[in-house]
Amino acid sequence: MKLLEEKIISEGKVLPGNILKVDGFINHQLDVPFIMQLGKEVARRFEGAGVNKIVTIEASGIAIATAVASFMNVPVVFAKKHKSGNISDDVYCAGAHSFTHGNDYTAVISKQYLSEKDCVLIVDDFLALGSAMECLIDIIKQAGASVAGCVSVIEKGYQGGGDKLRAEGIRVESLAVIDSMEGGKIKYRPDKSEA
Amino acid sequence: MKLLEEKIISEGKVLPGNILKVDGFINHQLDVPFIMQLGKEVARRFEGAGVNKIVTIEASGIAIATAVASFMNVPVVFAKKHKSGNISDDVYCAGAHSFTHGNDYTAVISKQYLSEKDCVLIVDDFLALGSAMECLIDIIKQAGASVAGCVSVIEKGYQGGGDKLRAEGIRVESLAVIDSMEGGKIKYRPDKSEA
Repeated sequence: MKLLEEKIISEGKVLPGNILKVDGFINHQLDVPFIMQLGKEVARRFEGAGVNKIVTIEASGIAIATAVASFMNVPVVFAKKHKSGNISDDVYCAGAHSFTHGNDYTAVISKQYLSEKDCVLIVDDFLALGSAMECLIDIIKQAGASVAGCVSVIEKGYQGGGDKLRAEGIRVESLAVIDSMEGGKIKYRPDKSEA
Repeated sequence: MKLLEEKIISEGKVLPGNILKVDGFINHQLDVPFIMQLGKEVARRFEGAGVNKIVTIEASGIAIATAVASFMNVPVVFAKKHKSGNISDDVYCAGAHSFTHGNDYTAVISKQYLSEKDCVLIVDDFLALGSAMECLIDIIKQAGASVAGCVSVIEKGYQGGGDKLRAEGIRVESLAVIDSMEGGKIKYRPDKSEA
């Protein structure tokens, strides 16, 4: 999505160690009018896909998930992050690893809010190695629900998580795919999805 | 707000110990079309108040803050919760206590995203004893910014946090104020704010 690619260039910062800092508009401060435009674009791409629920994970997935849901007119369920795997019977859970924070966690969703009737769109801010997405897919499968696709705002293509999911036959739509940040210069993968 | 009061009655659950469970539409599953209506009502109440930024705290404040911001056309900054007070120099922080989780935490906002030019609306899902609101007010004052008001979706009036803030001269708008839940029956404070 051109608008997002330009925003990342103008407002994002590439820090040593290939870290992309975009907390001025997506991770800490949220540019909500802009995020609503992203949400509208995601809704356009998944029009007619039968999505009746969006699943994300706290905390930084919630804003983009809310924006998408407002245009698709569906509810969001956000997975909660727990430190231990010692969780009650009335929830689905799966383990994941955060490379940003360098820790393991268990993602948890109440059984009340996912069932085999659901056709779920997974939405998150970042997709790198794909650990969070894989863990949400696991939870959705436990519930017997189907996965309409995975959406990320920014995919770090060079970390391979998105392409691994695509190879498994999952529809993955990222609004910007970064194929390299060598020397602090961001190179995008060509975007064929935009209207 | 009538619509919200009815939704709490029909979908909320009062559990032993005066606990109100509304995670079917506001805390875990998010009824986004409904939350957008709440956001619109908050924007109406604060029209002309000069708000240029919304501050909330992760995780369950983010959806309602995003909804309000989409109608006010302003950014959101969400405070992050840290376990230790051992934080870097480039952030504002203040301590708070979570009665829901029974722990202390430090709320943190980067100095980059709050300044004396900001007129801030604080938005959160719940207001009970007011610990989270007070800690966000503290952070906003550290930045030299002004507080336009505090908004909660559901205020537990009988816990006194909202009235304490009102007594300090702060404008507090809650979309539903519960004055008692004795015997599992919810009694609302009369709402004079609705159009």
